[in-house]
Amino acid sequence: MSVVFYSEADPPKPWRNAFAAVFPQMQFHVWPDVGDVESVRYALVWNPPSGMLNKYPNLKAVLALGAGVDYLLADPGTPDVPVIRLLGAGLAPQMAEYAVYAVLHFHRAMPEYHVQQSKSVWQPHAPVLSSQFTVGVMGAGIIGGLIAEHLVELGYAVRCWSRSGSSIDGVESFAGDAQLNEFLSACRVVVNALALTDKTVGILGTNTFMSMPPGSYVVNIGRGGHLVEDDLLAALDSGHIAGAMLDVFNEEPLPANHPFWSNPRVVVTPHIAGVTVASEAEAQVIENVKRMERGEPPVGAVDRQRGY
Amino acid sequence: MSVVFYSEADPPKPWRNAFAAVFPQMQFHVWPDVGDVESVRYALVWNPPSGMLNKYPNLKAVLALGAGVDYLLADPGTPDVPVIRLLGAGLAPQMAEYAVYAVLHFHRAMPEYHVQQSKSVWQPHAPVLSSQFTVGVMGAGIIGGLIAEHLVELGYAVRCWSRSGSSIDGVESFAGDAQLNEFLSACRVVVNALALTDKTVGILGTNTFMSMPPGSYVVNIGRGGHLVEDDLLAALDSGHIAGAMLDVFNEEPLPANHPFWSNPRVVVTPHIAGVTVASEAEAQVIENVKRMERGEPPVGAVDRQRGY
Repeated sequence: MSVVFYSEADPPKPWRNAFAAVFPQMQFHVWPDVGDVESVRYALVWNPPSGMLNKYPNLKAVLALGAGVDYLLADPGTPDVPVIRLLGAGLAPQMAEYAVYAVLHFHRAMPEYHVQQSKSVWQPHAPVLSSQFTVGVMGAGIIGGLIAEHLVELGYAVRCWSRSGSSIDGVESFAGDAQLNEFLSACRVVVNALALTDKTVGILGTNTFMSMPPGSYVVNIGRGGHLVEDDLLAALDSGHIAGAMLDVFNEEPLPANHPFWSNPRVVVTPHIAGVTVASEAEAQVIENVKRMERGEPPVGAVDRQRGY
Repeated sequence: MSVVFYSEADPPKPWRNAFAAVFPQMQFHVWPDVGDVESVRYALVWNPPSGMLNKYPNLKAVLALGAGVDYLLADPGTPDVPVIRLLGAGLAPQMAEYAVYAVLHFHRAMPEYHVQQSKSVWQPHAPVLSSQFTVGVMGAGIIGGLIAEHLVELGYAVRCWSRSGSSIDGVESFAGDAQLNEFLSACRVVVNALALTDKTVGILGTNTFMSMPPGSYVVNIGRGGHLVEDDLLAALDSGHIAGAMLDVFNEEPLPANHPFWSNPRVVVTPHIAGVTVASEAEAQVIENVKRMERGEPPVGAVDRQRGY
């Protein structure tokens, strides 16, 4: 019985140790060294090469090292076994930190002060109270919900948009396509924390931007596929969108010649908003393996129709 | 009966309207137009010129348009009437926003990502959990306390240092000179939100910096007088302090040739962490004037020995 591991972002060692401590009889292989393909029972992966996962006749589940599994569902080579994603597991607090940082960055005029500093210009801008600054969170799961809660604690006017609505204290809820434009109409900043599905692909495009007030901001910590990059560049050029903070991209690493790198209105970070921390995610993965070994259903199994 | 107003930072109009609405019989003068000096009953000021305040024989109180009154206590021309400072009044939430932003800025390696962006370099850095990142807040009043609470909500390991200790939920308390070095020894970032007094002047100097772990960060939203600027420049040059975010300076506006402007490890903002918002501060000032007119003691009168 064995586990096969693949990730370019996560070191295997903590995972090897975690499995060894709880399942001493289970071998731990780092792809492409997979040992006997018949003995592979679990795949523990982030962004594996296409076709890597359909080689194991006795595979019981694919355990994703992240909250988003769009790349697994899009790959026809992903076998028909449960795909299990991380729920929270240290990702949500990190992503909420990033979102809070991004909102404060724009709300508190930090891009302007940065430009002023480069010119030795001392020029305070009039304060805007957080209660007068509406933030829209797209997504109302564990991550979107935590983002919204922190923003409420900081006094922001917070609204959430999701497929089916939310019921977070102090947050105005909007649901579905019918309420998207109404949701956007007051957002000084939109923070995208949606799962990438065929319903949300390209959702950050011209229609969304033009439905927001002039001079507003976009933060993307979902997936690169949510954003229509050329639409954002056009909205930034026109000034309708005043700035963007982007952590995810259609192509990662972002190519060196991509215009986002040098656009003065764009902050680029290299997919670091939420990084799986083994010590946080271990307990959840190990518990799921225990459950499956006992014949119980795992927690976090993805609904392939819904996409998360 | 009249009020005399002076501030280079606050427009007089909302204050004129607020007084007119509640005290229609009270004239409102903007210095240097003060009308009859004998009729001046209240001075409503921020950073007035030295000697401006001792011209009014019937002055009942000096109402400061901010939380810090060091400049009034340092001026021998400030008359011997109650000096009343703002408590909270919209300042504390703004300063907490700034402090949270600054902590996230350093904790989440944003200076590094900014440099990388300028070179089109995609290089994630290993995540540090907020629970592993100790933040030290200097000051445990309304402002320091609110900063600490928000940081606790974000999962940081938070400790507070103040004259007499604090009792904020989830925050480790340190008090007085005897515990300063112990407080500092674990701080990855120190946020100074102290009042400026003869006990705290120059507290952000070489001893403080060297008591912090190598590669730590300094955030100053107290007063310029807390910081020994040359000591910080030396600590930044040596790398012992890895970065600083500074909102207040010994000389404001910060002179155009000051080395902070161009130091790549320093973020300069023009005294905007907490700006008095008339709509928030009005109620507090008007209520104090009402109290004094009824012969009751005002709220927020400064203890001149203590300095706040």
